[in-house]
This record gives sequence, structure tokens and C-alpha cells, in this order.
Amino acid sequence: MADPAGAPDALATMNQLLEQTIPRAHQMGVTFVELRAGYVRAEVPFEGNGNHFGVVYAGVIFTLAEVLGGALHYATFDVSTHYPLVRSMNIEFLAPGKGPLSASTALDDTEIARIRAAAVNGKVPFGLVAEVVGEDGTLIARTRGDYQIRPYGS
Amino acid sequence: MADPAGAPDALATMNQLLEQTIPRAHQMGVTFVELRAGYVRAEVPFEGNGNHFGVVYAGVIFTLAEVLGGALHYATFDVSTHYPLVRSMNIEFLAPGKGPLSASTALDDTEIARIRAAAVNGKVPFGLVAEVVGEDGTLIARTRGDYQIRPYGS
Repeated sequence: MADPAGAPDALATMNQLLEQTIPRAHQMGVTFVELRAGYVRAEVPFEGNGNHFGVVYAGVIFTLAEVLGGALHYATFDVSTHYPLVRSMNIEFLAPGKGPLSASTALDDTEIARIRAAAVNGKVPFGLVAEVVGEDGTLIARTRGDYQIRPYGS
Repeated sequence: MADPAGAPDALATMNQLLEQTIPRAHQMGVTFVELRAGYVRAEVPFEGNGNHFGVVYAGVIFTLAEVLGGALHYATFDVSTHYPLVRSMNIEFLAPGKGPLSASTALDDTEIARIRAAAVNGKVPFGLVAEVVGEDGTLIARTRGDYQIRPYGS
């Protein structure tokens, strides 16, 4: 799967980073499967992540959606000067997750340009909406996260 | 630690249930430490739950707060006829968690009576606010969860 843009390498690096930086998410089997500026998608298996109702546990769904913010930052902004922070998150549980799940989030070019320009001067808040879906596309959960991008040292 | 009210037994049962019903929460070391009708408190260690900033990972804090709902249900309502469900949850991250954390939530007697009376006829929504604090009492996170208590079969 050679990719002239080097996307497979970025993915492999991001998955390695996840293992090192958020071991609990890695242990759940959370894996990034698509990553580019303004877009990220991750998956989590069902095995080991169920609860007593036979559906994926709420804390796993939260984690699957939450890690997208850091990966999107990595793929979109300058990680040598800025870091991301989640301030708050709302999660709606819309249907039970009965199998492996996939979650994605995106930022459009206009919003990316706004954040990049503002971040030169300091902290910049931005919102991310993520959707968690089952294998058949059923919407399992939706999150709305309030993030900040911050220059190192702030 | 003999307790005439039998609280240690209820606690031990609840911790055993957590291990069986939400293995991922148990693996994080989430443990119930206080449990009575209308009140529950749980703790989680720092070890193994940190992230790359050296603070407790957001998904662990969410899980610590989220499991309180099920335990409160167990300690307060009739588990032979009704089960709890989380519909949505908002979590604010207010300060970094740099050590073991404790989370608690409560329902007052008036609200418990209202829910019990209404639950005879079907699903009843109720809200729970939980606070997550550090060892020195610093407020680390606050969650506001929308739950339902539902009769089995509904």
C-alpha cells in the first residue's frame, strides 16, 4: 500500500504515539485507520470492550471519540510549537454498539486557516464534532468537544 | 470493619459486579469505596492511567464518573425490576489530575422518592452531577449525566 503522500507512515507513527502516550486507549485496541490534515478516523474492536448488556462500554466509546482530537492536531497543526487540550466534551449515546466501532471527525479548510492564524498569538479554542458508527453505519454516539490549541509554555 | 448496616458487603458485591460487568473499568483500577442509598464514591489510582502530559487520561476520568450511575442505581433502586441507562454525559476538565482520583455523586431523598414513584409506570429520566477530585480536594472534573431508569422489558 505505497502512498506517495506518505499517509501510511503518518498512521503508523500516530498509532505508535497512542501506545506510548495513552496506554489505556491502546489497550482497548483503539487504532487510527485514516489520518490527513483536517480528517481522522479510528476504530475499536468489540472484543474485551463489552459491558453487561453485551454492548460496547460507554467509557470505550468516549475514548474512541476523544483520541481523535489529538490525532487531528498532529495531522493538521504544528506539533513542534503547539499542543491540544480538551476542555469539555458532551457525548450522546444514541444506539447500542453491538460490534466493532469507527469514529471520525473533521475540520474544514476555513476553520483550519482561522485556527492556524489565531494560534500565532496564543491559545485558540475550537470545537470538534465526532460521530461513532457501527459496521452497518448505525450512528452509535455523537460527541461535541471543546478543545484548545496552545503554544508550548502557555 | 464490621458494619451493622452491611455496607462492606454491598461494597464488595458492587466491586465484584464491576469486574464482571465492565472489565475495562476494573482494569483501570476503579474501585467503589462508599455506597449507600443516594450516595456513591469511587476511586482510581494514578498508576497506569496517565497520559503523555503526566496526568490522568480523560477517558479514565470519564469512566470513573460514569460508573457511579450504575452503582447508585444498585444502592438506591430495585435492581430486580429496573435497570439504569446513560443517555448523554457532559464532562468538564477543570484541572489536571496528577495523582489518584476520587469521584462521588448523590441523589437527595425527594428526588429518590420521585423517581421510585414514577418508575412504577415506565422509564424515568433523572440527572446526576458527579465531581472528580484529587487527594488534596482539587476539583479535577465535573460531569452532568442524563440517565434513565427503565423497567426490564422496556
